[in-house]
Amino acid sequence: MVEKIVELTQLYDFYGELLTDKQKAVLSLYLMEDFSLVEIAEQLSISRQAVYDYIAKCSKTLYGYEAKLGLLNRFLEREATLNRIADDLAEIAGEPNASALKQIISEIRQLARV
Amino acid sequence: MVEKIVELTQLYDFYGELLTDKQKAVLSLYLMEDFSLVEIAEQLSISRQAVYDYIAKCSKTLYGYEAKLGLLNRFLEREATLNRIADDLAEIAGEPNASALKQIISEIRQLARV
Repeated sequence: MVEKIVELTQLYDFYGELLTDKQKAVLSLYLMEDFSLVEIAEQLSISRQAVYDYIAKCSKTLYGYEAKLGLLNRFLEREATLNRIADDLAEIAGEPNASALKQIISEIRQLARV
Repeated sequence: MVEKIVELTQLYDFYGELLTDKQKAVLSLYLMEDFSLVEIAEQLSISRQAVYDYIAKCSKTLYGYEAKLGLLNRFLEREATLNRIADDLAEIAGEPNASALKQIISEIRQLARV
């Protein structure tokens, strides 16, 4: 459940601006403010069921954007590669050698293009 | 005009999957295959004016997505930073020193998060 919330928060970060204002209001209270469904319902003067429906609908919409565009996945892959490159650099930092550095530089330039 | 085409191609690469199949068909002939409007009209059996309208509408839609999400801009900024980091590494590659490397590593880890 926590992973689901983390993933939904990442998707909201990427595609949230494509939602309606009302959808954004519900989802930001849910994801950013950690409000319960009851609290969101009270805050926005709508029923608890309406809050639930908004979240379910937004979730489906955001996953739909990711299925089409895959930009979150592209970001996460690049994040992993960058951290791995930083690890590689840290490993050779004690005794840097030109050939290992050259390979890392070429990898960074490659990554800039994807 | 060429820059416009390059920019539109990048936007199409990011957000193209949000267009309809017909819009994608027109735009991919225009941007990827470098067809003229007349050639696209013949290929898809529609009028030249319809091709023009499709391109104008798609262009507006794609720029609209970028105005809301800014993911192309985020990508271009990261691309520039990665190339600059590669340049910095290349510059110290002859005589690598631990403190310069440490700073670059920290910059790469920082970049992984944005």
